[in-house]
Amino acid sequence: MGEVKLHGTWNSPYSWRVIWALKLKGIPYEYIEEDLSNKSPMLLQHNPVHKKIPVLVHDGKPICESMVILEYIEETWPQNPMLPTDPYEKAVARFWLRFADDKIPMLWRIARTNGEEEKQAIKDASEMLKMIEEHGISEKFFGGQKIGLVDLALGAVAHWFVAIDSKKGLKMLEAHNFPRLHSWTKDFKEDPVIKENLPDLTPLLK
Amino acid sequence: MGEVKLHGTWNSPYSWRVIWALKLKGIPYEYIEEDLSNKSPMLLQHNPVHKKIPVLVHDGKPICESMVILEYIEETWPQNPMLPTDPYEKAVARFWLRFADDKIPMLWRIARTNGEEEKQAIKDASEMLKMIEEHGISEKFFGGQKIGLVDLALGAVAHWFVAIDSKKGLKMLEAHNFPRLHSWTKDFKEDPVIKENLPDLTPLLK
Repeated sequence: MGEVKLHGTWNSPYSWRVIWALKLKGIPYEYIEEDLSNKSPMLLQHNPVHKKIPVLVHDGKPICESMVILEYIEETWPQNPMLPTDPYEKAVARFWLRFADDKIPMLWRIARTNGEEEKQAIKDASEMLKMIEEHGISEKFFGGQKIGLVDLALGAVAHWFVAIDSKKGLKMLEAHNFPRLHSWTKDFKEDPVIKENLPDLTPLLK
Repeated sequence: MGEVKLHGTWNSPYSWRVIWALKLKGIPYEYIEEDLSNKSPMLLQHNPVHKKIPVLVHDGKPICESMVILEYIEETWPQNPMLPTDPYEKAVARFWLRFADDKIPMLWRIARTNGEEEKQAIKDASEMLKMIEEHGISEKFFGGQKIGLVDLALGAVAHWFVAIDSKKGLKMLEAHNFPRLHSWTKDFKEDPVIKENLPDLTPLLK
Protein backbone atom coordinates (compact mmCIF):
# COMPACT_ATOMS: atom_id res chain seq x y z
CA MET A 1 0.00 0.00 0.00
CA GLY A 2 2.90 2.38 0.62
CA GLU A 3 3.49 5.05 3.23
CA VAL A 4 0.85 7.78 3.33
CA LYS A 5 1.38 11.16 5.00
CA LEU A 6 -0.92 14.14 5.10
CA HIS A 7 0.12 17.73 5.78
CA GLY A 8 -2.88 19.74 6.98
CA THR A 9 -4.28 22.12 9.56
CA TRP A 10 -6.91 21.11 12.11
CA ASN A 11 -9.40 23.81 11.12
CA SER A 12 -9.27 23.59 7.32
CA PRO A 13 -12.20 21.94 5.51
CA TYR A 14 -9.76 21.31 2.67
CA SER A 15 -7.66 19.10 4.98
CA TRP A 16 -10.76 17.37 6.33
CA ARG A 17 -11.96 16.47 2.85
CA VAL A 18 -8.84 14.40 2.50
CA ILE A 19 -9.02 12.92 6.01
CA TRP A 20 -12.63 11.84 5.39
CA ALA A 21 -11.69 10.20 2.08
CA LEU A 22 -8.79 8.30 3.67
CA LYS A 23 -10.96 7.18 6.61
CA LEU A 24 -13.84 6.12 4.34
CA LYS A 25 -11.38 4.10 2.23
CA GLY A 26 -9.73 2.66 5.34
CA ILE A 27 -6.23 3.92 4.44
CA PRO A 28 -3.86 4.33 7.40
CA TYR A 29 -1.83 7.55 7.29
CA GLU A 30 0.41 9.77 9.35
CA TYR A 31 -0.98 13.26 9.93
CA ILE A 32 1.33 16.25 10.12
CA GLU A 33 -0.22 19.42 11.55
CA GLU A 34 1.21 22.51 9.83
CA ASP A 35 1.63 25.93 11.40
CA LEU A 36 0.71 28.22 8.50
CA SER A 37 2.71 31.09 10.03
CA ASN A 38 5.78 28.87 10.02
CA LYS A 39 5.36 26.25 7.30
CA SER A 40 7.51 23.14 7.49
CA PRO A 41 10.38 22.77 5.01
CA MET A 42 8.70 19.55 3.81
CA LEU A 43 5.49 21.40 2.94
CA LEU A 44 7.41 24.05 0.99
CA GLN A 45 9.40 21.38 -0.78
CA HIS A 46 6.32 19.34 -1.64
CA ASN A 47 4.16 22.24 -2.82
CA PRO A 48 6.58 24.85 -4.22
CA VAL A 49 3.90 26.37 -6.47
CA HIS A 50 1.14 27.18 -3.97
CA LYS A 51 2.88 26.50 -0.62
CA LYS A 52 -0.52 25.43 0.73
CA ILE A 53 -2.07 22.57 2.64
CA PRO A 54 -3.33 19.93 2.17
CA VAL A 55 -0.52 17.89 0.65
CA LEU A 56 -0.75 14.10 0.51
CA VAL A 57 2.57 12.29 0.29
CA HIS A 58 2.30 8.73 -1.01
CA ASP A 59 5.52 6.71 -1.08
CA GLY A 60 7.46 9.98 -0.99
CA LYS A 61 5.57 11.53 -3.92
CA PRO A 62 3.56 14.70 -3.16
CA ILE A 63 0.04 15.38 -4.44
CA CYS A 64 -1.26 18.93 -3.95
CA GLU A 65 -4.69 20.58 -4.09
CA SER A 66 -7.51 18.89 -2.21
CA MET A 67 -9.61 18.10 -5.30
CA VAL A 68 -6.65 16.57 -7.08
CA ILE A 69 -5.90 14.55 -3.94
CA LEU A 70 -9.50 13.28 -3.77
CA GLU A 71 -9.38 12.01 -7.35
CA TYR A 72 -5.96 10.45 -6.68
CA ILE A 73 -7.27 8.61 -3.62
CA GLU A 74 -10.27 7.40 -5.62
CA GLU A 75 -8.06 6.04 -8.42
CA THR A 76 -5.36 4.58 -6.20
CA TRP A 77 -7.62 2.80 -3.70
CA PRO A 78 -10.77 1.69 -5.56
CA GLN A 79 -12.52 0.16 -2.51
CA ASN A 80 -15.69 1.94 -1.37
CA PRO A 81 -16.00 3.96 -4.62
CA MET A 82 -16.82 7.66 -4.25
CA LEU A 83 -17.23 8.70 -7.89
CA PRO A 84 -19.67 7.16 -10.41
CA THR A 85 -18.07 4.98 -13.10
CA ASP A 86 -20.36 6.15 -15.91
CA PRO A 87 -18.55 9.01 -17.74
CA TYR A 88 -21.64 11.24 -17.85
CA GLU A 89 -22.47 10.80 -14.17
CA LYS A 90 -18.80 11.33 -13.37
CA ALA A 91 -18.87 14.59 -15.34
CA VAL A 92 -21.90 15.73 -13.33
CA ALA A 93 -20.03 14.92 -10.09
CA ARG A 94 -16.95 16.79 -11.34
CA PHE A 95 -19.14 19.78 -12.21
CA TRP A 96 -20.19 19.96 -8.53
CA LEU A 97 -16.64 19.35 -7.32
CA ARG A 98 -15.57 22.44 -9.23
CA PHE A 99 -18.61 24.35 -8.04
CA ALA A 100 -17.69 23.55 -4.45
CA ASP A 101 -14.11 24.64 -4.91
CA ASP A 102 -14.99 27.84 -6.75
CA LYS A 103 -17.87 28.96 -4.54
CA ILE A 104 -17.06 27.85 -0.99
CA PRO A 105 -14.64 30.75 -0.35
CA MET A 106 -17.72 32.97 -0.74
CA LEU A 107 -19.12 31.54 2.51
CA TRP A 108 -16.12 32.74 4.53
CA ARG A 109 -16.94 36.34 3.55
CA ILE A 110 -19.99 36.21 5.81
CA ALA A 111 -17.79 35.45 8.82
CA ARG A 112 -15.48 38.37 8.07
CA THR A 113 -17.94 41.14 7.23
CA ASN A 114 -20.59 43.35 8.84
CA GLY A 115 -23.27 45.80 7.73
CA GLU A 116 -23.77 46.31 3.99
CA GLU A 117 -20.87 44.04 3.08
CA GLU A 118 -22.31 41.25 5.19
CA LYS A 119 -25.73 41.73 3.57
CA GLN A 120 -24.20 41.33 0.13
CA ALA A 121 -22.19 38.30 1.28
CA ILE A 122 -25.37 36.68 2.64
CA LYS A 123 -27.21 37.40 -0.62
CA ASP A 124 -24.40 35.82 -2.67
CA ALA A 125 -24.17 32.80 -0.37
CA SER A 126 -27.92 32.35 -0.51
CA GLU A 127 -27.86 32.28 -4.31
CA MET A 128 -25.07 29.73 -4.23
CA LEU A 129 -26.95 27.50 -1.77
CA LYS A 130 -30.08 27.82 -3.94
CA MET A 131 -28.14 26.44 -6.92
CA ILE A 132 -27.04 23.42 -4.88
CA GLU A 133 -30.55 22.94 -3.52
CA GLU A 134 -32.27 23.13 -6.90
CA HIS A 135 -29.75 21.58 -9.24
CA GLY A 136 -27.21 19.67 -7.18
CA ILE A 137 -28.95 17.35 -4.78
CA SER A 138 -31.70 14.88 -5.60
CA GLU A 139 -30.99 11.88 -3.34
CA LYS A 140 -29.90 11.41 0.26
CA PHE A 141 -26.31 12.30 -0.66
CA PHE A 142 -24.81 13.91 -3.74
CA GLY A 143 -23.30 10.51 -4.41
CA GLY A 144 -26.71 8.79 -4.16
CA GLN A 145 -27.41 6.65 -1.10
CA LYS A 146 -23.72 6.69 -0.09
CA ILE A 147 -21.30 9.52 0.62
CA GLY A 148 -19.22 10.44 -2.44
CA LEU A 149 -16.52 12.96 -3.31
CA VAL A 150 -19.04 15.78 -3.86
CA ASP A 151 -20.35 15.30 -0.32
CA LEU A 152 -16.80 15.56 1.01
CA ALA A 153 -16.13 18.65 -1.10
CA LEU A 154 -19.25 20.30 0.33
CA GLY A 155 -18.42 19.26 3.89
CA ALA A 156 -17.42 22.89 4.47
CA VAL A 157 -21.10 23.79 4.13
CA ALA A 158 -22.28 21.06 6.50
CA HIS A 159 -19.91 21.87 9.35
CA TRP A 160 -18.01 25.17 8.92
CA PHE A 161 -20.82 27.17 7.35
CA VAL A 162 -23.41 25.76 9.75
CA ALA A 163 -21.18 27.01 12.59
CA ILE A 164 -20.92 30.51 11.06
CA ASP A 165 -24.67 30.49 10.36
CA SER A 166 -25.41 29.61 13.97
CA LYS A 167 -22.88 32.02 15.47
CA LYS A 168 -24.29 34.92 13.42
CA GLY A 169 -27.90 33.81 14.01
CA LEU A 170 -28.64 33.79 10.29
CA LYS A 171 -30.63 30.55 10.14
CA MET A 172 -29.87 30.28 6.42
CA LEU A 173 -29.76 26.51 6.43
CA GLU A 174 -33.14 25.99 8.10
CA ALA A 175 -35.50 23.46 6.53
CA HIS A 176 -37.92 26.14 5.24
CA ASN A 177 -35.14 27.78 3.20
CA PHE A 178 -33.29 24.80 1.78
CA PRO A 179 -35.04 21.57 2.80
CA ARG A 180 -32.77 19.24 0.84
CA LEU A 181 -29.54 20.88 1.99
CA HIS A 182 -30.88 20.97 5.54
CA SER A 183 -31.49 17.20 5.51
CA TRP A 184 -28.18 16.60 3.80
CA THR A 185 -26.15 18.48 6.45
CA LYS A 186 -27.77 16.27 9.10
CA ASP A 187 -27.33 13.00 7.20
CA PHE A 188 -23.75 13.88 6.33
CA LYS A 189 -22.76 14.58 9.92
CA GLU A 190 -24.56 11.46 11.15
CA ASP A 191 -22.48 9.16 8.97
CA PRO A 192 -20.39 7.18 11.51
CA VAL A 193 -17.04 8.00 9.83
CA ILE A 194 -17.80 11.71 9.41
CA LYS A 195 -19.27 12.00 12.91
CA GLU A 196 -16.05 10.74 14.45
CA ASN A 197 -13.98 13.10 12.33
CA LEU A 198 -15.37 16.58 12.77
CA PRO A 199 -13.15 19.22 14.35
CA ASP A 200 -14.47 21.24 17.30
CA LEU A 201 -14.76 24.71 15.77
CA THR A 202 -15.44 26.50 19.08
CA PRO A 203 -12.01 28.18 19.14
CA LEU A 204 -12.71 29.69 15.70
CA LEU A 205 -16.06 31.12 16.72
CA LYS A 206 -15.01 33.04 19.83
CA MET B 1 -20.81 7.52 -31.21
CA GLY B 2 -23.86 9.71 -30.69
CA GLU B 3 -24.66 13.27 -31.67
CA VAL B 4 -22.19 15.86 -30.38
CA LYS B 5 -22.93 19.58 -30.21
CA LEU B 6 -20.81 22.37 -28.78
CA HIS B 7 -22.07 25.76 -27.65
CA GLY B 8 -19.21 28.26 -27.67
CA THR B 9 -17.98 31.68 -28.76
CA TRP B 10 -15.35 32.20 -31.47
CA ASN B 11 -13.00 34.22 -29.23
CA SER B 12 -13.07 32.15 -26.03
CA PRO B 13 -10.02 30.03 -25.19
CA TYR B 14 -12.39 27.94 -23.04
CA SER B 15 -14.38 27.01 -26.17
CA TRP B 16 -11.21 26.36 -28.16
CA ARG B 17 -9.89 23.93 -25.53
CA VAL B 18 -12.90 21.77 -26.30
CA ILE B 19 -12.68 22.23 -30.07
CA TRP B 20 -9.00 21.18 -30.01
CA ALA B 21 -9.79 18.10 -27.93
CA LEU B 22 -12.61 17.04 -30.29
CA LYS B 23 -10.42 17.62 -33.38
CA LEU B 24 -7.44 15.74 -31.85
CA LYS B 25 -9.75 12.82 -31.04
CA GLY B 26 -11.36 12.97 -34.48
CA ILE B 27 -14.91 13.44 -33.14
CA PRO B 28 -17.35 15.10 -35.55
CA TYR B 29 -19.56 17.73 -33.92
CA GLU B 30 -21.95 20.54 -34.66
CA TYR B 31 -20.77 23.95 -33.45
CA ILE B 32 -23.26 26.51 -32.18
CA GLU B 33 -21.92 30.06 -31.87
CA GLU B 34 -23.49 31.84 -28.89
CA ASP B 35 -24.12 35.56 -28.59
CA LEU B 36 -23.31 36.20 -24.92
CA SER B 37 -25.47 39.33 -24.91
CA ASN B 38 -28.42 37.20 -26.02
CA LYS B 39 -27.80 33.62 -24.91
CA SER B 40 -29.77 30.88 -26.64
CA PRO B 41 -32.60 29.18 -24.71
CA MET B 42 -30.70 25.89 -25.20
CA LEU B 43 -27.59 27.27 -23.47
CA LEU B 44 -29.65 28.52 -20.51
CA GLN B 45 -31.45 25.19 -20.30
CA HIS B 46 -28.23 23.18 -20.50
CA ASN B 47 -26.23 25.26 -18.02
CA PRO B 48 -28.78 26.71 -15.56
CA VAL B 49 -26.16 27.09 -12.81
CA HIS B 50 -23.50 29.17 -14.55
CA LYS B 51 -25.25 30.09 -17.85
CA LYS B 52 -21.81 30.04 -19.49
CA ILE B 53 -20.11 28.58 -22.53
CA PRO B 54 -18.70 26.11 -23.39
CA VAL B 55 -21.36 23.43 -23.09
CA LEU B 56 -20.91 20.08 -24.82
CA VAL B 57 -24.11 18.20 -25.57
CA HIS B 58 -23.63 14.48 -26.16
CA ASP B 59 -26.73 12.52 -27.14
CA GLY B 60 -28.83 15.29 -25.64
CA LYS B 61 -27.00 15.31 -22.29
CA PRO B 62 -25.20 18.55 -21.39
CA ILE B 63 -21.70 18.73 -19.89
CA CYS B 64 -20.62 22.13 -18.57
CA GLU B 65 -17.29 23.73 -17.59
CA SER B 66 -14.40 23.32 -20.01
CA MET B 67 -12.21 21.25 -17.66
CA VAL B 68 -15.05 18.87 -16.90
CA ILE B 69 -15.73 18.61 -20.64
CA LEU B 70 -12.07 17.79 -21.36
CA GLU B 71 -12.06 14.93 -18.84
CA TYR B 72 -15.40 13.70 -20.24
CA ILE B 73 -14.02 13.66 -23.80
CA GLU B 74 -10.93 11.79 -22.60
CA GLU B 75 -13.01 9.13 -20.85
CA THR B 76 -15.66 8.78 -23.54
CA TRP B 77 -13.33 8.58 -26.56
CA PRO B 78 -10.12 6.89 -25.42
CA GLN B 79 -8.31 7.13 -28.79
CA ASN B 80 -5.26 9.42 -28.86
CA PRO B 81 -5.01 9.63 -25.04
CA MET B 82 -4.41 13.08 -23.55
CA LEU B 83 -4.03 12.22 -19.86
CA PRO B 84 -1.46 9.80 -18.38
CA THR B 85 -2.87 6.50 -17.13
CA ASP B 86 -0.60 6.30 -14.05
CA PRO B 87 -2.56 7.77 -11.10
CA TYR B 88 0.40 9.85 -9.86
CA GLU B 89 1.19 11.31 -13.29
CA LYS B 90 -2.52 11.93 -13.78
CA ALA B 91 -2.60 13.82 -10.47
CA VAL B 92 0.32 15.98 -11.62
CA ALA B 93 -1.55 16.73 -14.87
CA ARG B 94 -4.71 17.57 -12.92
CA PHE B 95 -2.69 19.91 -10.67
CA TRP B 96 -1.71 21.91 -13.77
CA LEU B 97 -5.23 21.75 -15.20
CA ARG B 98 -6.46 23.45 -12.04
CA PHE B 99 -3.55 25.88 -12.09
CA ALA B 100 -4.47 26.87 -15.64
CA ASP B 101 -8.11 27.38 -14.76
CA ASP B 102 -7.38 29.34 -11.58
CA LYS B 103 -4.61 31.56 -12.91
CA ILE B 104 -5.40 32.28 -16.57
CA PRO B 105 -8.02 34.96 -15.76
CA MET B 106 -5.06 36.90 -14.29
CA LEU B 107 -3.64 37.32 -17.79
CA TRP B 108 -6.73 39.18 -19.03
CA ARG B 109 -6.11 41.88 -16.42
CA ILE B 110 -3.08 43.04 -18.40
CA ALA B 111 -5.27 43.71 -21.44
CA ARG B 112 -7.75 45.75 -19.41
CA THR B 113 -5.45 47.92 -17.28
CA ASN B 114 -2.97 50.78 -17.58
CA GLY B 115 -0.41 52.53 -15.37
CA GLU B 116 0.11 51.19 -11.85
CA GLU B 117 -2.64 48.60 -12.20
CA GLU B 118 -1.07 47.29 -15.38
CA LYS B 119 2.34 47.11 -13.67
CA GLN B 120 0.88 44.99 -10.89
CA ALA B 121 -0.96 42.78 -13.39
CA ILE B 122 2.29 42.24 -15.32
CA LYS B 123 4.15 41.37 -12.10
CA ASP B 124 1.47 38.84 -11.12
CA ALA B 125 1.38 37.31 -14.59
CA SER B 126 5.14 37.06 -14.63
CA GLU B 127 5.16 35.15 -11.33
CA MET B 128 2.53 32.80 -12.71
CA LEU B 129 4.49 32.17 -15.90
CA LYS B 130 7.63 31.57 -13.81
CA MET B 131 5.82 28.80 -11.91
CA ILE B 132 4.87 27.10 -15.18
CA GLU B 133 8.39 27.57 -16.56
CA GLU B 134 10.13 26.19 -13.46
CA HIS B 135 7.75 23.53 -12.23
CA GLY B 136 5.30 22.73 -15.01
CA ILE B 137 7.13 21.98 -18.21
CA SER B 138 10.02 19.58 -18.64
CA GLU B 139 9.47 18.03 -22.08
CA LYS B 140 8.35 19.33 -25.47
CA PHE B 141 4.73 19.43 -24.28
CA PHE B 142 3.17 19.25 -20.83
CA GLY B 143 1.89 15.86 -21.92
CA GLY B 144 5.41 14.69 -22.90
CA GLN B 145 6.17 14.36 -26.62
CA LYS B 146 2.47 14.66 -27.54
CA ILE B 147 -0.13 17.33 -26.82
CA GLY B 148 -2.22 16.52 -23.73
CA LEU B 149 -5.05 18.15 -21.80
CA VAL B 150 -2.67 20.48 -19.91
CA ASP B 151 -1.40 21.86 -23.21
CA LEU B 152 -4.99 22.53 -24.31
CA ALA B 153 -5.80 24.16 -20.96
CA LEU B 154 -2.80 26.47 -21.35
CA GLY B 155 -3.63 27.25 -24.99
CA ALA B 156 -4.84 30.64 -23.75
CA VAL B 157 -1.20 31.47 -22.95
CA ALA B 158 0.10 30.31 -26.34
CA HIS B 159 -2.35 32.27 -28.47
CA TRP B 160 -4.43 34.83 -26.53
CA PHE B 161 -1.72 35.98 -24.14
CA VAL B 162 0.91 36.07 -26.88
CA ALA B 163 -1.43 38.40 -28.79
CA ILE B 164 -1.88 40.69 -25.76
CA ASP B 165 1.87 40.57 -25.10
CA SER B 166 2.62 41.58 -28.67
CA LYS B 167 -0.07 44.28 -28.85
CA LYS B 168 1.19 45.89 -25.62
CA GLY B 169 4.86 45.44 -26.60
CA LEU B 170 5.64 43.63 -23.35
CA LYS B 171 7.83 40.85 -24.76
CA MET B 172 7.13 38.75 -21.67
CA LEU B 173 7.22 35.47 -23.51
CA GLU B 174 10.61 36.02 -25.17
CA ALA B 175 13.13 33.20 -24.97
CA HIS B 176 15.40 35.06 -22.50
CA ASN B 177 12.58 35.32 -19.97
CA PHE B 178 10.93 31.93 -20.22
CA PRO B 179 12.85 29.72 -22.66
CA ARG B 180 10.76 26.59 -22.13
CA LEU B 181 7.42 28.37 -22.38
CA HIS B 182 8.70 30.28 -25.40
CA SER B 183 9.53 27.00 -27.20
CA TRP B 184 6.28 25.46 -26.06
CA THR B 185 4.10 28.26 -27.50
CA LYS B 186 5.82 27.73 -30.87
CA ASP B 187 5.60 23.93 -30.79
CA PHE B 188 1.97 24.08 -29.67
CA LYS B 189 0.90 26.37 -32.47
CA GLU B 190 2.86 24.37 -35.04
CA ASP B 191 0.94 21.17 -34.29
CA PRO B 192 -1.08 20.57 -37.49
CA VAL B 193 -4.43 20.25 -35.68
CA ILE B 194 -3.88 23.33 -33.49
CA LYS B 195 -2.49 25.38 -36.40
CA GLU B 196 -5.66 24.83 -38.41
CA ASN B 197 -7.83 25.73 -35.44
CA LEU B 198 -6.64 29.07 -34.10
CA PRO B 199 -9.03 32.01 -34.23
CA ASP B 200 -7.87 35.27 -35.80
CA LEU B 201 -7.75 37.57 -32.78
CA THR B 202 -7.23 40.79 -34.78
CA PRO B 203 -10.76 42.09 -34.08
CA LEU B 204 -10.10 41.76 -30.32
CA LEU B 205 -6.86 43.72 -30.46
CA LYS B 206 -8.07 46.82 -32.27
